[in-house]
Amino acid sequence: MRPRIAAILLGILLGAAAPMLSAQNKQDIPAPDAPDNPLHTATRQELDVVKVLLAQEKAWNAGNLDEFAKGYKNSPDTLFIGHQVSKGYAQMLNDYRKNYPTAASMGTLTFTDLEVHPLSETFAVCIGKYHLDRSKKEGGPAEGIFSLVFEKTDQGWKIVVDHTT
Amino acid sequence: MRPRIAAILLGILLGAAAPMLSAQNKQDIPAPDAPDNPLHTATRQELDVVKVLLAQEKAWNAGNLDEFAKGYKNSPDTLFIGHQVSKGYAQMLNDYRKNYPTAASMGTLTFTDLEVHPLSETFAVCIGKYHLDRSKKEGGPAEGIFSLVFEKTDQGWKIVVDHTT
Repeated sequence: MRPRIAAILLGILLGAAAPMLSAQNKQDIPAPDAPDNPLHTATRQELDVVKVLLAQEKAWNAGNLDEFAKGYKNSPDTLFIGHQVSKGYAQMLNDYRKNYPTAASMGTLTFTDLEVHPLSETFAVCIGKYHLDRSKKEGGPAEGIFSLVFEKTDQGWKIVVDHTT
Repeated sequence: MRPRIAAILLGILLGAAAPMLSAQNKQDIPAPDAPDNPLHTATRQELDVVKVLLAQEKAWNAGNLDEFAKGYKNSPDTLFIGHQVSKGYAQMLNDYRKNYPTAASMGTLTFTDLEVHPLSETFAVCIGKYHLDRSKKEGGPAEGIFSLVFEKTDQGWKIVVDHTT
């Protein structure tokens, strides 16, 4: 399933992010479509948001929950909606630690079908699917759909609402 | 279950919306906490967002899907995430019509545990639970959790992302 993420990233890189970055690096050269083309903002968002999820995937698969959790905003307002609603970064991390106490229980996580939908310059929604490959002993494979609300914070794009089915 | 919505609304009305409205109506009288207290903006959002859901509840229970659908932004970008992801207002309305062809199949809808989480002046997330009371013949009762992203549009606050479990 990984190739789909790669395809999205490649699409972003080849499609618009590369010209955007080069326009930023050469501010003395006129870039006719750079300053007021909203596509550039959206595309940078897409790249930045997808990068957060790729970092989460990598951290999860390294068995590093603390690193994985950095994808979320460290705030008491961060929402996690699963079977129940839980509030706050600390509670969310606690729940993860309880549900996934070992690297074996974490298994191998893959995100697919990622779609970033910009709401504004500072908010975006990302929907996608996850697949967890895990031994039968650890509960077997699991998968589902998620929608994430991202906020552009001082520490970069962070998840402020996670609804995972 | 209805009393909980009533309690939220009452809390909003008694808590801050009433002073806000009265401050707006008496602009010649200094209102020390009105102009730059973010609470007012947030609270007005809460009231406006909850009103959309109450209108949806009312429309649903009158068997009026077209009126219910007005809670959503009429845009091809509107997202509905259930078991699958569907895109666009038209598709969403089609799905509703297919799944709920009669007033009996719609049953009686109640929203509870509504919480509005403002993201910015133009975006908010609302989480809550729904309960559908329906005869056994029509599939029996159903319930679940939802998270909605609302956008403040020219036509008022509208749902742009609906994730219902």
